[in-house]
Amino acid sequence: GFAKLDHHRTLRSGFGEVVFCQGKSIPHLRDIFVRFYERDTNVLGTRASVEQYEEVKKVLPMVEYDPTSRILSIQKIKKQGVGCVAVCTGGTSDIPVAEEAAQTAEFFGSNVLRIYDVGVAGIHRLLSKMDDIHKANCIIAVAGMEGALGGVVAGLVDKPVIAVPTSIGYGANFGGLSALLTMLNSCAEGLAVVNIDNGFGAGYIATQINRLKNE
Amino acid sequence: GFAKLDHHRTLRSGFGEVVFCQGKSIPHLRDIFVRFYERDTNVLGTRASVEQYEEVKKVLPMVEYDPTSRILSIQKIKKQGVGCVAVCTGGTSDIPVAEEAAQTAEFFGSNVLRIYDVGVAGIHRLLSKMDDIHKANCIIAVAGMEGALGGVVAGLVDKPVIAVPTSIGYGANFGGLSALLTMLNSCAEGLAVVNIDNGFGAGYIATQINRLKNE
Amino acid sequence: GFAKLDHHRTLRSGFGEVVFCQGKSIPHLRDIFVRFYERDTNVLGTRASVEQYEEVKKVLPMVEYDPTSRILSIQKIKKQGVGCVAVCTGGTSDIPVAEEAAQTAEFFGSNVLRIYDVGVAGIHRLLSKMDDIHKANCIIAVAGMEGALGGVVAGLVDKPVIAVPTSIGYGANFGGLSALLTMLNSCAEGLAVVNIDNGFGAGYIATQINRLKNE
Amino acid sequence: GFAKLDHHRTLRSGFGEVVFCQGKSIPHLRDIFVRFYERDTNVLGTRASVEQYEEVKKVLPMVEYDPTSRILSIQKIKKQGVGCVAVCTGGTSDIPVAEEAAQTAEFFGSNVLRIYDVGVAGIHRLLSKMDDIHKANCIIAVAGMEGALGGVVAGLVDKPVIAVPTSIGYGANFGGLSALLTMLNSCAEGLAVVNIDNGFGAGYIATQINRLKNE
Amino acid sequence: GFAKLDHHRTLRSGFGEVVFCQGKSIPHLRDIFVRFYERDTNVLGTRASVEQYEEVKKVLPMVEYDPTSRILSIQKIKKQGVGCVAVCTGGTSDIPVAEEAAQTAEFFGSNVLRIYDVGVAGIHRLLSKMDDIHKANCIIAVAGMEGALGGVVAGLVDKPVIAVPTSIGYGANFGGLSALLTMLNSCAEGLAVVNIDNGFGAGYIATQINRLKNE
Amino acid sequence: GFAKLDHHRTLRSGFGEVVFCQGKSIPHLRDIFVRFYERDTNVLGTRASVEQYEEVKKVLPMVEYDPTSRILSIQKIKKQGVGCVAVCTGGTSDIPVAEEAAQTAEFFGSNVLRIYDVGVAGIHRLLSKMDDIHKANCIIAVAGMEGALGGVVAGLVDKPVIAVPTSIGYGANFGGLSALLTMLNSCAEGLAVVNIDNGFGAGYIATQINRLKNE
Amino acid sequence: GFAKLDHHRTLRSGFGEVVFCQGKSIPHLRDIFVRFYERDTNVLGTRASVEQYEEVKKVLPMVEYDPTSRILSIQKIKKQGVGCVAVCTGGTSDIPVAEEAAQTAEFFGSNVLRIYDVGVAGIHRLLSKMDDIHKANCIIAVAGMEGALGGVVAGLVDKPVIAVPTSIGYGANFGGLSALLTMLNSCAEGLAVVNIDNGFGAGYIATQINRLKNE
Amino acid sequence: GFAKLDHHRTLRSGFGEVVFCQGKSIPHLRDIFVRFYERDTNVLGTRASVEQYEEVKKVLPMVEYDPTSRILSIQKIKKQGVGCVAVCTGGTSDIPVAEEAAQTAEFFGSNVLRIYDVGVAGIHRLLSKMDDIHKANCIIAVAGMEGALGGVVAGLVDKPVIAVPTSIGYGANFGGLSALLTMLNSCAEGLAVVNIDNGFGAGYIATQINRLKNE
Ligand SMILES: Nc1ncnc2c1ncn2[C@@H]1O[C@H](COP(=O)(O)O)[C@@H](O)[C@H]1O
Ligand SMILES: Nc1ncnc2c1ncn2[C@@H]1O[C@H](COP(=O)(O)O)[C@@H](O)[C@H]1O
Ligand SMILES: Nc1ncnc2c1ncn2[C@@H]1O[C@H](COP(=O)(O)O)[C@@H](O)[C@H]1O
Ligand SMILES: Nc1ncnc2c1ncn2[C@@H]1O[C@H](COP(=O)(O)O)[C@@H](O)[C@H]1O
Ligand SMILES: [Mg+2]
Ligand SMILES: [Mg+2]
Ligand SMILES: [Mg+2]
Ligand SMILES: [Mg+2]
Ligand SMILES: [Mg+2]
Ligand SMILES: [Mg+2]
Ligand SMILES: [Mg+2]
Ligand SMILES: [Mg+2]
Repeated sequence: GFAKLDHHRTLRSGFGEVVFCQGKSIPHLRDIFVRFYERDTNVLGTRASVEQYEEVKKVLPMVEYDPTSRILSIQKIKKQGVGCVAVCTGGTSDIPVAEEAAQTAEFFGSNVLRIYDVGVAGIHRLLSKMDDIHKANCIIAVAGMEGALGGVVAGLVDKPVIAVPTSIGYGANFGGLSALLTMLNSCAEGLAVVNIDNGFGAGYIATQINRLKNE
Repeated sequence: GFAKLDHHRTLRSGFGEVVFCQGKSIPHLRDIFVRFYERDTNVLGTRASVEQYEEVKKVLPMVEYDPTSRILSIQKIKKQGVGCVAVCTGGTSDIPVAEEAAQTAEFFGSNVLRIYDVGVAGIHRLLSKMDDIHKANCIIAVAGMEGALGGVVAGLVDKPVIAVPTSIGYGANFGGLSALLTMLNSCAEGLAVVNIDNGFGAGYIATQINRLKNE
Repeated sequence: GFAKLDHHRTLRSGFGEVVFCQGKSIPHLRDIFVRFYERDTNVLGTRASVEQYEEVKKVLPMVEYDPTSRILSIQKIKKQGVGCVAVCTGGTSDIPVAEEAAQTAEFFGSNVLRIYDVGVAGIHRLLSKMDDIHKANCIIAVAGMEGALGGVVAGLVDKPVIAVPTSIGYGANFGGLSALLTMLNSCAEGLAVVNIDNGFGAGYIATQINRLKNE
Repeated sequence: GFAKLDHHRTLRSGFGEVVFCQGKSIPHLRDIFVRFYERDTNVLGTRASVEQYEEVKKVLPMVEYDPTSRILSIQKIKKQGVGCVAVCTGGTSDIPVAEEAAQTAEFFGSNVLRIYDVGVAGIHRLLSKMDDIHKANCIIAVAGMEGALGGVVAGLVDKPVIAVPTSIGYGANFGGLSALLTMLNSCAEGLAVVNIDNGFGAGYIATQINRLKNE
Repeated sequence: GFAKLDHHRTLRSGFGEVVFCQGKSIPHLRDIFVRFYERDTNVLGTRASVEQYEEVKKVLPMVEYDPTSRILSIQKIKKQGVGCVAVCTGGTSDIPVAEEAAQTAEFFGSNVLRIYDVGVAGIHRLLSKMDDIHKANCIIAVAGMEGALGGVVAGLVDKPVIAVPTSIGYGANFGGLSALLTMLNSCAEGLAVVNIDNGFGAGYIATQINRLKNE
Repeated sequence: GFAKLDHHRTLRSGFGEVVFCQGKSIPHLRDIFVRFYERDTNVLGTRASVEQYEEVKKVLPMVEYDPTSRILSIQKIKKQGVGCVAVCTGGTSDIPVAEEAAQTAEFFGSNVLRIYDVGVAGIHRLLSKMDDIHKANCIIAVAGMEGALGGVVAGLVDKPVIAVPTSIGYGANFGGLSALLTMLNSCAEGLAVVNIDNGFGAGYIATQINRLKNE
Repeated sequence: GFAKLDHHRTLRSGFGEVVFCQGKSIPHLRDIFVRFYERDTNVLGTRASVEQYEEVKKVLPMVEYDPTSRILSIQKIKKQGVGCVAVCTGGTSDIPVAEEAAQTAEFFGSNVLRIYDVGVAGIHRLLSKMDDIHKANCIIAVAGMEGALGGVVAGLVDKPVIAVPTSIGYGANFGGLSALLTMLNSCAEGLAVVNIDNGFGAGYIATQINRLKNE
Repeated sequence: GFAKLDHHRTLRSGFGEVVFCQGKSIPHLRDIFVRFYERDTNVLGTRASVEQYEEVKKVLPMVEYDPTSRILSIQKIKKQGVGCVAVCTGGTSDIPVAEEAAQTAEFFGSNVLRIYDVGVAGIHRLLSKMDDIHKANCIIAVAGMEGALGGVVAGLVDKPVIAVPTSIGYGANFGGLSALLTMLNSCAEGLAVVNIDNGFGAGYIATQINRLKNE
């Protein structure tokens, strides 16, 4: 087997390794899942297809799949959630990315608060949710098109905001570039950005931040 | 003389031709200003330098110059202002572009309301000004960096919003590209965009819109 | 339900909220349409597929669909058209985007004049239509490839022009970028630009402008 | 005065407003500093020039300036540092951006550990510093050119890493774009990115994170 | 001497080699000019500075310099002009590039007709010049900003059009990219494009074309 | 019918109008072909699919289709070929674009010489064909990937060269951008460029040039 | 036959010509393979599909195909391998490109050492393999996403490193651009880069280098 | 002192560490040079200014500076040159980058053959030098503008070619991007590319390759 299981990672970082399922062949993916299952308590796969799920299920019947987030996971021992991560979206089309973030955060042990469809084109929707958002230790702001949500949220809270640009939109959104640049250039303080559509990355670092409060 | 004075334009569109001063040599610019002065009631030059101003002043002592907007103008007959155009900016660094817009709108006969430094990173500043903004027939939203102001304003009013991205910022703003893309991808309705730093263009079309109400 | 219906929007801006159908799942879309239908007088959906139409029709039999513009709409009370918006295109391939603009403008209560296939490569075609175009309060210029139509029209009229770049073309058009940049850099006055292929946005703001004249 | 002092910000987020000095005129900047000084305990300005420093000093003699970080600040009451933020750089040319980050973090009350010139082209330099780095609650990784430092550090720690791309380099670095894309595409978990050369933004969010641990 | 004088070129192509002066040191440039002068009948240098001119003049007093086109040339035997190349510009700011084209064409033996400041924002200016333009065997269309002139001209004539985008403009012109893309994407037939600001290249190929008619 | 047949074009430019078939619906395309057939002697369509061919054939049985060039044409009266246009390609993958150019040139009355697969990676192949190439009045150089063919050919001939970048390649060819930039930046004289994959445009202007020699 | 077989190449460079199969029609590809088979000892095709393989096999039954590398080859006489080329990858998804490199190197006579899935996000994996890597005369580093592997390896060895960016990733990887820029901007010495996904090019030049040691 | 001298590097790779002088302050640079001088036999600095040279000379009088290559070096023991590296350029403007490559290669112990001004626009110049070029173990091809030299050379030799794009040119060369893309997309085998203007990187890896032959 070519893939080197990263035996040091759990020790090093307190989280197990995660499988990037996209583009992996069925036998290869099945092999990785089995090895992780035997070694670790839990296994998390991202960007999995329904077909990959069905094939992995044949050898590991306890595997679970969420078609919205495309997360494929085994959780032998569910972690007790701590603290709070808020996940906000600009529109309903951003929900798949937001769910990847939310479920990743939950997998690694964060409580998650979902606040969806509160984009800045109708700012009163966001403002009416601020009491909830203030409860979180870290906020994830997921938005496509213009991507302004991240900066507006960061201007309203005193906690770190992780912004996730999505590829939602068309034309001059250039596959998410417009939202990415908006977020990188925000003049609000307290904002950092992950790759376009990278809900997983946002959920992971938000959990690292949330755990600090609760250590 | 190479430059063909656009004799048809005033008839055709109700506005005189405007001089783009940037990069024009002193003799060339002086020549154009003199010819326009002799033909038209008023002359408007944009992106003029102090040095250009001083040289034009030698032959046309009534010429006026504003170093913030870099507008060089002669107004023999001041137009009576009509209606209302609101000009908003995200930060104080956007003011030169905003002034180019505002003074252009005034030159062509609009009343202008200035509402500066109300960027979305501190959204309460904009919200506290909404009563004023609602009085305008057209709103110009000038912003650099993330450029989110245009979309947020458009979401709060029922009048057309002309968004002007500015080149203010650094790094991944790519000379105003970030703000431009933000504005083009806004999911708020009622927003159209002009070129980066093109205050003049915004002031001009805002006046065309404002005049419709008052015809 | 995740999607927050924007209850304030009709009040705020005088237009109901619009549904961006592209990428929405059937149940989700059906749910939104039903709720809007119950709350508002009219419902407008853009970028809908035939399949989405057929599924929404099952629950809302009065829904109408135009395969050219891809607009999915319910109009319980047809608004009486006012004023005039002219919609021009460079070629026949730009007509789908133009129809999205035209039907949006009509939905919100504008009279629309269609002037198609008058691109600048055969300038006499446009010139022969100028008498009609001069009747409009606002002109929408839709063009792909080089996208020069917007600037040429703006140079011929004294009304605001909303330019819509389209993704029509190939090679160095880069998905509409060439037409977008042409329009943003036009040296004609009185031009503002919306996103590539955003006929809806153009029809909306043109109606806001057209209504000013008729208030 | 056009600039609206953000009276709500300290309450809202626990930090005072920060002045972006670049491009601001001397009178304008002096005015802002005086008003902040009168209202707040401390004032922080970023991207200030020596000339700006000398002019502000005339009215506020207690102002301090660091020519490396270009930070201009008044600290009437030095905050007691808590926790630990580690600031790493790839090369010595990245130090100005790193110092902007470090001094920002210190200004807002974080202890800072500086670990400079440990770029991945000589990986042993970084590895020999890991014991120190593991003490931090948050790591800031500053790197230009290829920008690989962020991902390598994130792979070695279990704390959040804030990556700052710098514009250091030439040719196909495209003003920092290469480092920015590297950091956004890292396959290490636990990494989020701020704008090119935005040391301030990194120092700010790192402090928000560091404070969580110490609340 | 490192520079290999291209002894074959005159034979091969009927034109002598041309010197790209920009960035060349004075001794290096002087050396090249002397060698070309001794070998050829005529010498043409492009993009020369005044300083380069003055230094070359010291050793070759018959050298001539035009500060608009920045062409530095020696013409021992003036070629008798044949046929006709028309050079059009959109604005007056495009004249330096147009003159580089015109003077290059003249140097190599074409008659040139200059038709400047006939940009498409005032289309009547171009239309009023069509009788002249129809006399040319080849038309050079020079335009910056939106760059639409090339396509409009090509739609009006049955001769080849060489379009030259210029870097004139600002903001989203991206140093001439907007005009370049416009010209490449023209839907008019009979148009080919040279590099941004490459008046020399246009004048050269236009002469090759013009000579065909007159061979 | 929306499409305005360009009745002036044949008069104006000596060539009939050409149909851009790509993306046109069957009824629309059939309608255009019938009208052109009734009005003109010949009809040329580019970028047609096999399906479009079969449908047009039902109403116009004399229509011809070449699957390589994707040209759909009716030639009631074959023009007698004049002069010579040489069409060269870098590789065999560039042949479809080259055939679009060659057949366009033939349609409008040029003799064509095809010299394929002579790319610069094996320069002896091109050099061995120079005797033939020197016979042409205009050379079309079609190349993808690095696109260096245009510049090398232009350096070897004294006739105008029309360079056509193709989208052949992968990775950093960015859909033909690499070849396009190569051709625009060539330091050989006598080269002008058309859009990526635009064989039609090259064949058209080459014919305009070739006809000059033969008028 | 259009394709000119490059009869000089074997003599000139010591390697036979290689077939780029992608996009070639079956008859065309079969024809080329047969001619090469008759002329050369060995034939190498890259980027072949399964379908192309099956069709070529019908006329040349000894042809071999590897679905991972997509290499289609005939090796009548297997070259005796010399020296050593190491091929490393960042992840398992990069293996297809790596195998194209490895099998190309083997085809032309290099011994190859495969070291896969040693990306910098878990740097200990690479460090544990350094003893093997030091045995190679040339190292090929294949990586997508952030692409940092090349620079880290180059910093650890004293042999030339050929870096291959891959298009693996999503979002701001822009089809491999992120990895490409990372590799070009590496501050490690001893690194040169080939096109995105160009395993073949890397395997070829690595063999040229490896052979130098063994001549 | 922040800069960590890379004590392992000489051992690891057989070459001393190199100083990137650009942007370093005088005291900082002087300090680094003194420390390297004391530790190593030789010191190499790249991209140094005349002013940096003069200041370093004050403390290290034996330091040498070449204003063309901008290399600042101390060579206590001149290495005996081995083998042969050929350095070719397209034009004379590329010589500074070529000299950086050549002098780097000489510093590390390669014999260098300089072949300048042999660009592909006059291919006979290159062909007449092939006998010399064939003597090299590695060829460095330096070219700006279209950058085609690398591919043409690689097609003529059987040794590895390192291509260096330069930023020479204007307009659509985009600071060297055009030449970079040309080189990356070359269809000649045996070519790898370094960063724009990175003569140093090319000279370094060429020496690693050249040494293999001579070990
Ligand atoms: N959706 C995702 N986006 C980015 N990185 C991911 C994602 N899912 C997993 N990864 C990372 O990719 C690596 C696994 O890649 P692989 O070895 O190809 O499965 C691990 O470092 C994961 O943390
Ligand atoms: N170096 C910096 N980079 C980005 N944003 C900054 C920087 N310094 C200050 N800011 C932010 O810019 C805004 C102040 O802008 P201004 O009102 O123009 O002074 C505040 O929101 C600051 O938090
Ligand atoms: N303005 C220009 N733009 C593009 N190429 C030019 C220009 N002037 C001269 N050249 C070409 O550049 C080459 C001369 O370059 P050089 O040897 O550096 O003088 C010749 O091939 C000229 O035809
Ligand atoms: N392959 C092509 N590439 C670019 N332009 C074309 C092509 N084929 C036709 N055209 C031009 O496109 C226009 C026809 O567009 P349409 O009216 O949509 O058929 C005419 O001006 C043609 O000259
Ligand atoms: Mg905040
Ligand atoms: Mg609105
Ligand atoms: Mg107008
Ligand atoms: Mg160092
Ligand atoms: Mg024409
Ligand atoms: Mg030539
Ligand atoms: Mg892995
Ligand atoms: Mg070779």
